[in-house]
This record gives sequence, structure tokens and C-alpha cells, in this order.
Amino acid sequence: MPNSIKAITTQAAPQPFGHYVQATEAAGVVYVSGQLAARADGASLADQPFEIQARQALANIIAIVDGAGLSRDRIAKVTAYIVGVEYWPAFNAIYADVFGAHRPARAVVPVPELHHGYLIELEAIAVR
Amino acid sequence: MPNSIKAITTQAAPQPFGHYVQATEAAGVVYVSGQLAARADGASLADQPFEIQARQALANIIAIVDGAGLSRDRIAKVTAYIVGVEYWPAFNAIYADVFGAHRPARAVVPVPELHHGYLIELEAIAVR
Amino acid sequence: MPNSIKAITTQAAPQPFGHYVQATEAAGVVYVSGQLAARADGASLADQPFEIQARQALANIIAIVDGAGLSRDRIAKVTAYIVGVEYWPAFNAIYADVFGAHRPARAVVPVPELHHGYLIELEAIAVR
Repeated sequence: MPNSIKAITTQAAPQPFGHYVQATEAAGVVYVSGQLAARADGASLADQPFEIQARQALANIIAIVDGAGLSRDRIAKVTAYIVGVEYWPAFNAIYADVFGAHRPARAVVPVPELHHGYLIELEAIAVR
Repeated sequence: MPNSIKAITTQAAPQPFGHYVQATEAAGVVYVSGQLAARADGASLADQPFEIQARQALANIIAIVDGAGLSRDRIAKVTAYIVGVEYWPAFNAIYADVFGAHRPARAVVPVPELHHGYLIELEAIAVR
Repeated sequence: MPNSIKAITTQAAPQPFGHYVQATEAAGVVYVSGQLAARADGASLADQPFEIQARQALANIIAIVDGAGLSRDRIAKVTAYIVGVEYWPAFNAIYADVFGAHRPARAVVPVPELHHGYLIELEAIAVR
């Protein structure tokens, strides 16, 4: 019998907008759902500058990984979807500031738009 | 010697259009290739409404996971690429209907276009 | 205590442009960061035709997996982000030529643009 797939939930990040959980864990791997720039209380930062949105989306990822009982240095991979490749340098600078010495594998993927007009969506894989 | 990477194949989902397999399995993790709205016999639904395409792409993902001997509740993560973020609510409703109680981690990623004019592409990770 | 997340580094692929490593390895899974069409010495091929860019990005993925001590047939999943779905056939042909008998799971995701004007970005997951 396989170990069940565990839903990770935390009040320290926005609750899901749709039919998903903040993260799942299976076989020691935590899959974090796409996170937008909403605060834990659900308040949208979609009208805020990119830098503020990037920090919030990163905070959400890290809060969910923390909710799985893991520190941010257990994040192995981050995928960043950004609206406008011109935000790449700003994203990279904020990301470096947040992660410090830890450098996950990463892909930055420009997209034409995001839900509700957000400028950035982040997903991550962490490992127990 | 590592366990070999296993190709998952099923007749219940469209055969690959290119140089890939429907899914691979390695170390107990099943990686499902991007699935479009084609029927198992290869018939394209690219000219059909979004809702029909979404149901077909979901059916393909689930058929392939089933072909790996796993039920849909072993899906840990889904990534949905959609052409037009305005389809988000329709996608979410169909997705909830198909998955029922199970909620994988998920990211929805708007894209400018998809191969052959499809409106949705889904990929998934399932765990044995 | 968990096994630490290992940074994979090789001189045979371009050094990271930002706050990431070429790949991480955790629990036997290698996550390769998004690779563009730059040579190992950092020279950009962004002004070259798609075919040349595709071969370089593939070479970078394979060099990094090799740097982890794994052959290309240990790649379980590839995600290809391409600017312009019209490059799908060219991409598929080059990809088949490079991978030969091995067929990873794959998703091809059209994007509106990539960093520095590149036409293709590839990421991969390999398994020890």
C-alpha cells in the first residue's frame, strides 16, 4: 500500500483560490502550488509594483515549505512565471536577497499574463 | 546499477506526436508528458470549446496514470498551460468535477498559444 | 537529519547568470535549471537560428546531467519553452537526433519571449 499523498496546509500563506492545496507531499517530496502575490489573509497585491509582488510570492512559497516542516534551504527547484522579461533583473535581485546562500535550481519563464493581473507566479519543489 | 527509466504506454490515451513517451517512471515517480485535447484514437478536439478540450486533456492524464497502474488520487502535481486566462474559472470547475475529493498541488500557466491551436495542455506528476 | 541538497556544477555548460546553480540533486533526483543557448564559455547564441539554439540548449542540459555523473538516458522529463510554436517540428527533429533511442517524458510550452531574446529554454529532471 502506498503512503498517502499528504496535503500541506498553513495559515501563513493565502488559502487556495481553486481546487488545489497549497502543497502536496509524497515520498518525501513537497510540491508547492503556484503562488501569486496575495497576502496570507487573501489580500491581493496585484496592483502593487513587481518588486512587492515578487517578495510576497516568495514569502508564500517559503511559508508553505515551512508549513511542511522544512526550511527554505530544502527547496531544490523554483519555477518563476513572470509577465514581462524586463523584470528578470529585479526578480533575481530580490530572490538572491531572500534566499541568501542557498541557490535552488531555477527556471524563469515569461508568460503573456497571469490570473487577476498578477505579474509573478512561483512554484517550488522541496525535499524532506 | 540504477533502476532503468520505464516508459509508460497505454492505448487509452493518444499516442505521442513526437519524440517522447506518454510518461516515464523512475524511482517510483511518474512524469506524464504534456497532454492536449486529442482522443485516444488521435482525433483532434482543437476546434472544440475549451470545456471539451479541458475534459479530454484531463482524461488523457488520468488514462496515462492509470496505465502506470495508479489511480488519479496518486497525482501529486498538475501543471495546466492555458491559452487565455479567462478560461481559469471554467478550467477550475471541470478540474474539480473530475478530481472530486482529491486536490493535487497545481499551477495554472497562461501561454500565448499551443501546438495545433489547442487551448489547454496538462502535465502531471504521480507517485507510486 | 536530511541529506543536504547538493549543487551540481560543471565547466562544460554556461555558468549561472543569476542566483541559481546549474542543477541541484536531492534524494537521487537531479533538477536542471533552465538552459538557454549559450556556450560553456558564456558566449550567447541568441542571434543564431532556432536550430543552432536548440542544439546548444540540449547540449547544456546533457553536459549538466553528465556533470552529475549521469548519462542522458537518465533524463526522465524535459520541459521545453519555445518562442513560436512554429518551431515545434524543428525542435522535435533535433531533439530526436540528440536523444536517439531514449525518449523522456516531455512538455513543449510556447512562451511570448525569453531572456535576452533567446528562442528556446530547456529544463530537465534526471534520476540517479
